[in-house]
Amino acid sequence: MNFKFSEKMGNLKASAIREILKFTSDPSVVSFAGGNPASEAFPTKEIERIAEEILTKTPIAALQYSITEGYGPLRESIKKVILGRGETIFHEGIDDIIIMSGAQQGNELSCKVFCDAGDTLICENPSFIGSLNSFKSYGVNLVGVTLKEDGVDLEELESVLKQNPNSKVIYLIPNFQNPAGSTMSLEKRKAVLELAKKYDVMILEDNPYGDLRFAGEDVPSIKSLDTEGRVIYCGSFSKVLAPGLRVGYVVAHKEVIQKIVVCKQVSDVHTNILAQMICNQFLEENDYQQHIQKLRGIYQHKCNLMVDCIEKYMRPYITYQVPEGGLFIWCTLPDHIDMVDFCNQAVQKKVAVVPGTAFMPNESYHTQSFRMNFSTPSDDDIVRGVKILGELLESLS
Amino acid sequence: MNFKFSEKMGNLKASAIREILKFTSDPSVVSFAGGNPASEAFPTKEIERIAEEILTKTPIAALQYSITEGYGPLRESIKKVILGRGETIFHEGIDDIIIMSGAQQGNELSCKVFCDAGDTLICENPSFIGSLNSFKSYGVNLVGVTLKEDGVDLEELESVLKQNPNSKVIYLIPNFQNPAGSTMSLEKRKAVLELAKKYDVMILEDNPYGDLRFAGEDVPSIKSLDTEGRVIYCGSFSKVLAPGLRVGYVVAHKEVIQKIVVCKQVSDVHTNILAQMICNQFLEENDYQQHIQKLRGIYQHKCNLMVDCIEKYMRPYITYQVPEGGLFIWCTLPDHIDMVDFCNQAVQKKVAVVPGTAFMPNESYHTQSFRMNFSTPSDDDIVRGVKILGELLESLS
Repeated sequence: MNFKFSEKMGNLKASAIREILKFTSDPSVVSFAGGNPASEAFPTKEIERIAEEILTKTPIAALQYSITEGYGPLRESIKKVILGRGETIFHEGIDDIIIMSGAQQGNELSCKVFCDAGDTLICENPSFIGSLNSFKSYGVNLVGVTLKEDGVDLEELESVLKQNPNSKVIYLIPNFQNPAGSTMSLEKRKAVLELAKKYDVMILEDNPYGDLRFAGEDVPSIKSLDTEGRVIYCGSFSKVLAPGLRVGYVVAHKEVIQKIVVCKQVSDVHTNILAQMICNQFLEENDYQQHIQKLRGIYQHKCNLMVDCIEKYMRPYITYQVPEGGLFIWCTLPDHIDMVDFCNQAVQKKVAVVPGTAFMPNESYHTQSFRMNFSTPSDDDIVRGVKILGELLESLS
Repeated sequence: MNFKFSEKMGNLKASAIREILKFTSDPSVVSFAGGNPASEAFPTKEIERIAEEILTKTPIAALQYSITEGYGPLRESIKKVILGRGETIFHEGIDDIIIMSGAQQGNELSCKVFCDAGDTLICENPSFIGSLNSFKSYGVNLVGVTLKEDGVDLEELESVLKQNPNSKVIYLIPNFQNPAGSTMSLEKRKAVLELAKKYDVMILEDNPYGDLRFAGEDVPSIKSLDTEGRVIYCGSFSKVLAPGLRVGYVVAHKEVIQKIVVCKQVSDVHTNILAQMICNQFLEENDYQQHIQKLRGIYQHKCNLMVDCIEKYMRPYITYQVPEGGLFIWCTLPDHIDMVDFCNQAVQKKVAVVPGTAFMPNESYHTQSFRMNFSTPSDDDIVRGVKILGELLESLS
């Protein structure tokens, strides 16, 4: 039959990454296309022990309906253990916190709360495809602002704000951006917050990778600079504990959280409660800093290895920025190489990367870049895969 | 600061039930206001054993990112164990199945896929507040059709379809409806499907309580009568296993499922994978029919007890329909008693029920009814609470 789908769904397509990931189910393919955290970073034994303890001692609490705002002790643990380190992300008396089924849900519902169809949402260009698609699913007008090595181009941002008086939200990933790997400077964070005030728009600060810094110095979050409640902050356990749990959180002004609560209530009612209890007990019983140090070691090693291989095999042909954390390296081809053709040829040679077009706010933007992930592949695969990409680049140059 | 929330969020309020449930945190209050399944119905030992086994044997699979469509073996188990009993809900070659974070997400995303702001969605009057609010969150025009003892009023439904050519979806809870407790007759199911064809609208069939039948005969689902893919069927593990797991599913035409996959991907990426694996292993290793029989016994006992008490204490003052399954009894007051005032006075006397206004499609509808839940309270509380309500009714009559 002929389905009459909603207009807002008309232009929404399955993520281009998903299409590429289909190739990667072939075990002979080296995949730099995913964004999975390293499996060896999961504290599996600890999670197993905690889950057993919860299901033995308090099975009903872990299995019955729970409240939409999230498991109370977890909300407190996040404030105490994760958010309070050297900066004030949670402003007592102004902000509130809600547990989400992953930070993606936080981004999605923040958009729903502020944007009607046709409203403008400003994002970095490039930006995280999952969030961009979630914004598109609400029919918003998505406008990208060029991302430089130290964050968005401020002049371009102000120009976009001026040209789009219906702008509601600026979406940013300030730390180890996905896909670009760049980190926004403190000066730019302050300037962006000032622009948001000047044009009366909200900032949606997505920080899934912030704890995965393995080089350089921490930069204060934009939320820590915000005293009026203009910034919505999304955090996640996906990269620091385990993504399959689907637990994230949003810190925002109480009034904003109230709206997000209503939106979440009508979506999935509440986040899986056993997973929330596991996250909480992990935070309560472990030294979080020590745990994070271990993860940083794993990712630093993998990033260094990939950078070494890029220098050895790919360097003459591409430009890139060495990330100070996160999971991704963003590589840019010279103009004479067709980027999409390069990605397709790479898959044929059994190495998958993600063409940068996947991360553009819409199809009108052009890019010569592609994204490489270093957290998922094994060391051997990193060496082998980058070498194959280098050979392909040589043949195309 | 002054937040500029989206228009569609403007009229959306937190569920009225939530406000009432706040009173019920007082342990001296007898709550007939919730909708929680009976805790004694949870197979806690079995879930504990299964969770431990999964986290010992396949921890990475249970903790890593997974696919949006859901855990493959669970999708197969649902088709095999739950959907195939005496009727064809899943039409091979036409339909597909996706795992949801609760059936509520299935209802929400079905609306998102078919309705733009301003489109009409037709529902039963009264209907489940969670779904109604989820539809409202997309700015749809919600029109209620009177619910009779055997399902919606067909003449009124056709009249609404005629008057609203922008109707996209008819939302129905055919079995043990929430809140009314009624079950739609086979004749009406067939007639509603014919009307949906005639006016080219989709049917969203929500069936969270279908397995909780403790009296009468099963009636075929509307989805089983549908050969072209016009019906979207939502099922749930919340009432038959445990709601805290947040696992439900949607069966619909492949093209519809593809759209729902995209919507879910941009919302919570996928449902908590450990919970999906627990549901699957429970279905694989247990006799589901035997499990369901046990639950039916628990709910039949509780329903009978509440009905006996209603007959003894409340009967002269109210009318109601004895449900053949589910969790709720819908009671209607005579015109001379103010329903909302009755509910407020009941709470003051430490018995919470939900005023029927909570289940109206919008505030323009009037009702003399209120909802009572028998699955959550203890036997003692059922006797004590109904007696108090009877005394209150006597004093008001």
